[in-house]
Amino acid sequence: MHDDNPMVIFQPSGRRGRVPLGATIMEASRLLGVGIEALCGGLQVCGKCRVLIETGRFPKYGIDSQCDHAGPWREAEGEHLSPEERAAGYRLACAARIDGDLLIYVPEESRPGKQVVSKDARPIVIEIDPAVKSYSVTLDRASLEEPTADLERLQHALKRDHGIGGGLTIDVKALRSLPQCIREGAGHLTASIWMDQEIIRLQPGEAEHCYGLALDIGTTTLAGYLCDLHSGTVVATASAMNPQIQFGEDVISRINYHLNNADGLAHLQETVIEGLNRLVEKVLSPPDPPYEHVIHRGDIVDVAVCGNTLMQHLLLGLDPESLGMTPFVPAHHAGLNIRARDLGIDVNPSARIFILPNEAGFVGGDNIGVMLMEAPQKSEDIVLIIDIGTNGELIIGNRQRLICSTCSCATGPALEGAQIEFGMRAAPGAIERVRIAPDTFAVDYKVVGRELWRSQSPPAEMQTRGICGSGILDAVAAMFRTGLITPSGAFDSKVATDRLRENADSGMLEFVLVRSPETSIGRDVTISQNDIRQVQLAKAAIYTGCKLMLQRIGIARPDRIKLAGAFGNHVDPVMALTIGMFPDCPREQITSIGNAAGDGCRMALLNCRKRIEAERIARRVEYVELSMMSNFQDELIAALDLPHQCDAFPHLADILPTGNGYDWEAQIRSGAV
Amino acid sequence: MHDDNPMVIFQPSGRRGRVPLGATIMEASRLLGVGIEALCGGLQVCGKCRVLIETGRFPKYGIDSQCDHAGPWREAEGEHLSPEERAAGYRLACAARIDGDLLIYVPEESRPGKQVVSKDARPIVIEIDPAVKSYSVTLDRASLEEPTADLERLQHALKRDHGIGGGLTIDVKALRSLPQCIREGAGHLTASIWMDQEIIRLQPGEAEHCYGLALDIGTTTLAGYLCDLHSGTVVATASAMNPQIQFGEDVISRINYHLNNADGLAHLQETVIEGLNRLVEKVLSPPDPPYEHVIHRGDIVDVAVCGNTLMQHLLLGLDPESLGMTPFVPAHHAGLNIRARDLGIDVNPSARIFILPNEAGFVGGDNIGVMLMEAPQKSEDIVLIIDIGTNGELIIGNRQRLICSTCSCATGPALEGAQIEFGMRAAPGAIERVRIAPDTFAVDYKVVGRELWRSQSPPAEMQTRGICGSGILDAVAAMFRTGLITPSGAFDSKVATDRLRENADSGMLEFVLVRSPETSIGRDVTISQNDIRQVQLAKAAIYTGCKLMLQRIGIARPDRIKLAGAFGNHVDPVMALTIGMFPDCPREQITSIGNAAGDGCRMALLNCRKRIEAERIARRVEYVELSMMSNFQDELIAALDLPHQCDAFPHLADILPTGNGYDWEAQIRSGAV
Repeated sequence: MHDDNPMVIFQPSGRRGRVPLGATIMEASRLLGVGIEALCGGLQVCGKCRVLIETGRFPKYGIDSQCDHAGPWREAEGEHLSPEERAAGYRLACAARIDGDLLIYVPEESRPGKQVVSKDARPIVIEIDPAVKSYSVTLDRASLEEPTADLERLQHALKRDHGIGGGLTIDVKALRSLPQCIREGAGHLTASIWMDQEIIRLQPGEAEHCYGLALDIGTTTLAGYLCDLHSGTVVATASAMNPQIQFGEDVISRINYHLNNADGLAHLQETVIEGLNRLVEKVLSPPDPPYEHVIHRGDIVDVAVCGNTLMQHLLLGLDPESLGMTPFVPAHHAGLNIRARDLGIDVNPSARIFILPNEAGFVGGDNIGVMLMEAPQKSEDIVLIIDIGTNGELIIGNRQRLICSTCSCATGPALEGAQIEFGMRAAPGAIERVRIAPDTFAVDYKVVGRELWRSQSPPAEMQTRGICGSGILDAVAAMFRTGLITPSGAFDSKVATDRLRENADSGMLEFVLVRSPETSIGRDVTISQNDIRQVQLAKAAIYTGCKLMLQRIGIARPDRIKLAGAFGNHVDPVMALTIGMFPDCPREQITSIGNAAGDGCRMALLNCRKRIEAERIARRVEYVELSMMSNFQDELIAALDLPHQCDAFPHLADILPTGNGYDWEAQIRSGAV
Repeated sequence: MHDDNPMVIFQPSGRRGRVPLGATIMEASRLLGVGIEALCGGLQVCGKCRVLIETGRFPKYGIDSQCDHAGPWREAEGEHLSPEERAAGYRLACAARIDGDLLIYVPEESRPGKQVVSKDARPIVIEIDPAVKSYSVTLDRASLEEPTADLERLQHALKRDHGIGGGLTIDVKALRSLPQCIREGAGHLTASIWMDQEIIRLQPGEAEHCYGLALDIGTTTLAGYLCDLHSGTVVATASAMNPQIQFGEDVISRINYHLNNADGLAHLQETVIEGLNRLVEKVLSPPDPPYEHVIHRGDIVDVAVCGNTLMQHLLLGLDPESLGMTPFVPAHHAGLNIRARDLGIDVNPSARIFILPNEAGFVGGDNIGVMLMEAPQKSEDIVLIIDIGTNGELIIGNRQRLICSTCSCATGPALEGAQIEFGMRAAPGAIERVRIAPDTFAVDYKVVGRELWRSQSPPAEMQTRGICGSGILDAVAAMFRTGLITPSGAFDSKVATDRLRENADSGMLEFVLVRSPETSIGRDVTISQNDIRQVQLAKAAIYTGCKLMLQRIGIARPDRIKLAGAFGNHVDPVMALTIGMFPDCPREQITSIGNAAGDGCRMALLNCRKRIEAERIARRVEYVELSMMSNFQDELIAALDLPHQCDAFPHLADILPTGNGYDWEAQIRSGAV
């Protein structure tokens, strides 16, 4: 970068460098590898990327940083920053442009948190029949009378000893190792063969170990499961943020990033591949105590990948534009087998990466994975599966009929991120459980990463940073139950508590959940009227999706509900029912199934017949685009209120006393909630 | 390169740079991209790489060059350089090591010549049925009711309109272009499909042009034929030296380079791929007048490659060690289809490169190409095909039986290069035709690149540099016919001519073919006793190969002889018969067939059934390793003499008067020779 370009220094990381004049602070942060939250993908609508311009001469760094070096104030900034904040030097990183040397402080709440992801591997019961199998053979010797080539002797031995024949090919990289393998193993070697069709790896002698990797590409989280292809056991798991987050929190933001940037698709693809390669590194890094033997990249000879349609398109570098507009057509339905080296995934370069099939819209391989794992298509009961990750996906049906859909809004961000003022992902410091006393309106809460509740802790130790999805859900349910908010979702200004106050800027009511001494951000954590509206919208979207799909299948309520995904695993079903997020269902028929998509992906890795089953499911399931249904808007509006009529929720009435007399503490004591 | 490394400057090219201390001059020349002949591959046996150390201070270059900067004198240098040459500053580039700054002059005879290759495309008659075919289709529109993915709609249209179905896959790069192609072509597009199995290219609308490339990888020469896959016509041809020449002239030298250098195989592979990519560039560069439309790399959607087993192994990066030792086993027999991007060949990256099958030893895809073209396997007559490129390959047989073999020595270099004192390739300045008057022993000759014979030219215009294969053959035949040499091959010292003289260094007799004023190298061009021995050895090797194969097939002489390859195309069959290079055969049954291997490769490109035929031939043909036959040595020794008994050559007697009374000028006048 040229010497007369402005010098930019980010604190507290201390990263510095020269950046192009006129770049936004967000662009500069990417160039210098500094993380700043960009939930909306830089569209200047989420206000999460606030940074502080430190003014003055900094001889230590040889720069002179002034507020006006961040370019003219933009209208969008005024919508997210108060006049006081503006005066203090706050700017939005996505709006302010670099006009001179700058020292920029990134406050804690603007730094991307390290999410606590619960994508652990559940035990799955499956016959081990992987796509890549290893066979040991001893080759005939070549002679002057029969100077048969190495490959043909290998093919002959594989046919003779294992019955593998008919068009068996070999990848050129494996072929290159053949002469040496024969020499080193004195004619005895082990071949790893994909689908009995192609030799993809050769090792001298008897090679025992053979590994596969299941990769679950979530919009927010990447998860990897390293499996022993002989035993099926999970050898290592790892998860990480999907680094595409920097280009936007939800699917629509990422499509927009592609549409608005010439190299957008390439960036998105490279970024997720880099993220996956770091994941490969993680699963391979020796644990403590170390494995009996070291596992190398080359030992990973098979990979199965699932993700929603967009994640799969971006991984493959496929133009995703049509996914977001009618008729919501993906580039491909059928599963694909793509050479690892063609994608740049750092496993055995000859391995083929199996991409699970897509359905339509954003419903992709992850949904197929859920169905492989939960098998609603084999059930007599009508099962409703609600997979709320960043993207909300719904499956309903049984062996007769199967319908899938995505929720009409990106439910994850609505509940966890961009649209909630103090919303954040389930990272340390995020409020994940909330209880409100019905008489005093005292708040008790628990944060991610800390065992003890607020009532059991010295206030300063809470170090609260914000509120995550399960926390906001708890809070709204509790506020409703204690009468702080009315069924329409509005604050009841008649409730007497100093926690309910007017916001100085907006003049709107807000509820103080956590006072600033208990936070690490130096501000009260509050729930605004707007936050409640966002939760109402999200829950109404999920409820409406479920209801319309139940209508289409012709029944009033499902026999069972399964909650999948990171959010589905965290949410308290009773609280969700309280605010009317799901259709009514007996409490004991509601179960959390964890990362079912990742589990299904592992099934496809360990048993190649599951891949055929996946194709069959993908062809069978009907895709419904909810937003195109004529009664969608009416139903959505009807679903906004809290609570629903309890006569529509007979099972809810069993577990929750209705009305204002709800004794929260008694419920805790009895263990009911 | 570090500043205190020696500076080396090569003249006359003027290329300069710092090179590692202790590197040979040959290694330095490669680092700096200077061509020096290395016929033996740097083994210090051919003596072709003589260079001159210019001594003195060269202020212009800031260096001080002294003879002792080229390291101590090596024993091998003494075998090729006379004491006078040593005193003048001559060194062998492969032996002398850089010990300080050097200014090095590369004399003309040590520079690799630009060979005149006659690898033009002959017209071939073949049904056009290429492996890659293009199909135009119009896709159904996707709708909300049927949100069928792009790929599935394409597959459906291809099945509906062209009957292509059942497991049709798509390369990921082609898939990436699908959404845009659909948009640009408004649903109308053209798909190029490999073997009706895989879509490898998509173009919007109706795409008319589709090209394939046949590549013939010779040990010395690369040839490329760009063909229109619709019409089968050759659009452009190009040829170039195989740049692997720098690692050794013949197959054995290249294997040795691999065995003696850790990265040898990788170097050999990279080098030939670079050479092929330059060839691709050549065939694509617009001719004058230019094509009606520009052809891009991406338009080349299919490639067929033939070469001897070693050339094919090196292209693929396969360890060639076992090719050169009993039982002469290649890494693979069957033809391979390898993705262009996996080899780094700059055509459409999704194209598959078809490598013709191998037989055994060095008999590879080039030999299969010859058989595809000449079809001895379909002939009633017994056909003998002698393919003398750098490597000599023999085929004999008919529809009943087919045998192939390589000559026991690299006949090409023996006749053209390393083993002949003034031997060189058929480059400008090389003597290609020789006539000697039986009475005066006056020599008339013709050089490559010049129409007029010596007898028709001012001497200084000849600019003779050396002698190529057909020239040395002519010379030996003429010396024998004029009595200059006896049937044993020894010079007859009783012949009175000042052209026959004793060599000052060796004391051996030599014949002065061209006097120094007619040369561009400042020295007489002579034929030494040793040169004659080399020709005897080469012709005996070819003759013995033919004879042993005839014996194995159980006949005395073939019905027809076909001469293939660069040398086979150049040689005068009468002269070859004169010295007994081939078995006896009526003159009119001896034909030159040019680059039959390349022609056969084109057939495999233009008709995919020829690829199946190639596999069938490769499995059918018997490979004979001549050097392992018990009577080989005896037969070889018996074949050394000139001439063979004319009763073994009844047909030769028809065209040549026997004995010393051969009236050469009458023969020329009558047009017989």
